[in-house]
Amino acid sequence: MHKMHKSFRTLVHNDHFLKLLNNQKSRFLRPELYSTSAHAGRAIISKAAVAWEAGKPLVIEKVEVAPPQASEVRVQIKYTSLCHTDVYFWEAKGQTPLFPRIFGHEAAGVVESVGECVKNLKPGDHVLPVFTGECGDCPHCKSEESNMCELLRINCDRGVMIGDGKARFSQNGTPINHFLGTSTFSEYTVIHEGCLAKIDPKAPLDKVCILSCGVSTGLGATLNVAKPKKGSSVAIFGLGAVGLAAAEGAGISGASRIIGVDLNPNRFEQAKNFGANEFVNPKDHNKPVQEVIAEMTDGGVDRSLECTGNINSMISAFECVHDGWGVAVLVGVPTKDAIFKTNPMKVLDERTLKGTFFGNYKPRSDLPSLVDMYMNKKLEVEKFITHRLPFSEINRAFDLMLKGESLRCIISMEE
Amino acid sequence: MHKMHKSFRTLVHNDHFLKLLNNQKSRFLRPELYSTSAHAGRAIISKAAVAWEAGKPLVIEKVEVAPPQASEVRVQIKYTSLCHTDVYFWEAKGQTPLFPRIFGHEAAGVVESVGECVKNLKPGDHVLPVFTGECGDCPHCKSEESNMCELLRINCDRGVMIGDGKARFSQNGTPINHFLGTSTFSEYTVIHEGCLAKIDPKAPLDKVCILSCGVSTGLGATLNVAKPKKGSSVAIFGLGAVGLAAAEGAGISGASRIIGVDLNPNRFEQAKNFGANEFVNPKDHNKPVQEVIAEMTDGGVDRSLECTGNINSMISAFECVHDGWGVAVLVGVPTKDAIFKTNPMKVLDERTLKGTFFGNYKPRSDLPSLVDMYMNKKLEVEKFITHRLPFSEINRAFDLMLKGESLRCIISMEE
Repeated sequence: MHKMHKSFRTLVHNDHFLKLLNNQKSRFLRPELYSTSAHAGRAIISKAAVAWEAGKPLVIEKVEVAPPQASEVRVQIKYTSLCHTDVYFWEAKGQTPLFPRIFGHEAAGVVESVGECVKNLKPGDHVLPVFTGECGDCPHCKSEESNMCELLRINCDRGVMIGDGKARFSQNGTPINHFLGTSTFSEYTVIHEGCLAKIDPKAPLDKVCILSCGVSTGLGATLNVAKPKKGSSVAIFGLGAVGLAAAEGAGISGASRIIGVDLNPNRFEQAKNFGANEFVNPKDHNKPVQEVIAEMTDGGVDRSLECTGNINSMISAFECVHDGWGVAVLVGVPTKDAIFKTNPMKVLDERTLKGTFFGNYKPRSDLPSLVDMYMNKKLEVEKFITHRLPFSEINRAFDLMLKGESLRCIISMEE
Repeated sequence: MHKMHKSFRTLVHNDHFLKLLNNQKSRFLRPELYSTSAHAGRAIISKAAVAWEAGKPLVIEKVEVAPPQASEVRVQIKYTSLCHTDVYFWEAKGQTPLFPRIFGHEAAGVVESVGECVKNLKPGDHVLPVFTGECGDCPHCKSEESNMCELLRINCDRGVMIGDGKARFSQNGTPINHFLGTSTFSEYTVIHEGCLAKIDPKAPLDKVCILSCGVSTGLGATLNVAKPKKGSSVAIFGLGAVGLAAAEGAGISGASRIIGVDLNPNRFEQAKNFGANEFVNPKDHNKPVQEVIAEMTDGGVDRSLECTGNINSMISAFECVHDGWGVAVLVGVPTKDAIFKTNPMKVLDERTLKGTFFGNYKPRSDLPSLVDMYMNKKLEVEKFITHRLPFSEINRAFDLMLKGESLRCIISMEE
């Protein structure tokens, strides 16, 4: 605010700016006028599922959610879903634990109030929070090819807001860490404007919420990066939600052979609903799966997508593409110490290895059109939703995911 | 011929085909009518530089060159050049030796006579022999993306013609091995039609001969595969002829920063003529060259091209490209046991690794237009030619290359 006041002083000699100043001033002084919420500009007491310790059940309790600061937006979460990344960081086996923390990043909600300098959102807007952002100004945002925003790129280790380095969540004065800048396991959360995609208000939030992470990641990996041609062959490694979305993308692209690869054969039947029409279980063969696939496809598939994060699966996914034109796309995130190894002749023989992050979608620019695809019936999301639970039963959603029983479980915040 | 006669029989009931048959028959019976050469259909005695033993000086002597068989063409070589691949297989350190052998694959010549079924070439046509071919019928030839013809793809271990498994070269009845299907260190050689690019007869053969291998490889790697944008940054690893051609391609593409990387700083001055405008000698730094380049370029270059074949250089070339959009292209051929290793997160962060073979040019379809580029002054080849020698001094060309003194040495077969 101090900085803002100073700049206001420099403007007061100009009538036009004087008017603007008065408008702005009244807004800063009475922010509730610019909000649908009676709480705008003040902390809100919100129910949130707090993770107090690694791997221990979340506890639903009341927390304070501070008002949004510059470039921030406070969002009322309507529906949230659960993704493996939440579970991975909740288990905190591979990284520095950061607790207490409010997890959750796949969700949909409505803007409750906005902080200073927020240009593109207003209270009442329907939004998808995204774990990575789009500032619009950095070289990545200005590049047509990248979506890895320099300012708002995913940061799993940050538990605070980027603006002032503080948390907006607290309980009795004790701050509670954010997660991925979204923390959607809370009725209200504060998110940087650059991490919110404004979507068609007619879109059903209990369905499109799953476009805010996994489904878009897999779909975009195929549609934006692998880009299979009509009639081509595509291998999908890993038939979880991301892999199934990648398979769905292959079907949308017109691929004719969609080969699902998974160690769990129980997933094959379900994968048929997503377009997979051939299946390979590496356990059924005593040679590397890349050789099995090469034999099935007269030298290799046209495209492959690796959606598990397992390093051996990554190598197989690369080596199973056809020489001359094959493209392998890595989607799944590996463990810290993994090393990708291959014979360089495999590369020289005109194979391509690419990586993607969030399906190469720019969160703010591209997600609205993905929601439109759903609204225009060009994309089916319902089949990813296997379970629904009220917020009070959020720990059951963790169980379902850990047991591999759910693809996506939608958690309703209002129940 | 047997197969051909059989098919003739099936056609004789049709007048039109009868005429065709008579035309064809007379051609098969008197092939010299369809040749500028008095030797058509018979063996030619030709001067050739024969490698009798690995690493020993070539011996120029008279050999018999048999007439071309089905789909083959006998070519009078006018100019040949020398490439590292010739030297590598002549030294025979890394592979099964195949001697006696006639090396040479970068050249230009004139068709002397053609065998049966040759459709696209006739005596007198000007041609560039290519070490890899284009049959036109296989999945690779039919793919827009690949140039790795299934039938005529490079084969370093084959010393005979693909049609009948025999050599066309002999001396006193002893066969002499071919090399890469071209063997251009001979006044006359026999080459599969699919490995010959027909070019503009006005093009000077003593210059465009170098487009038949190294220069096209480097140039195409940049123009067809790396595709740098105007104003972008490009790192070139290895400033030999291939790397310099890659740099030239970067200049043609409008790249503004062209960073030459070489362990030999003597190459930097020369590289300026090919567009390189910044230089890095990895020996001058005590951190990995990929880090040096990332610091120079605010996170990495937009494109890199690896033209040495050294495995560490390959890894550096990949890791020095910018996340979000960087593309690394491997051009140089590695040793047999090399393993490419990298942290898979480098891939996941939206970097691309590609390999190329002969700059992704399809020999027959694309080389003629490269010659046209030269004829239209859009490509300079003269600056690659540092030496000229008569055929009798071919061993000096080997010395020059081994000492790193020449880029390209043109050997005139008629001197």
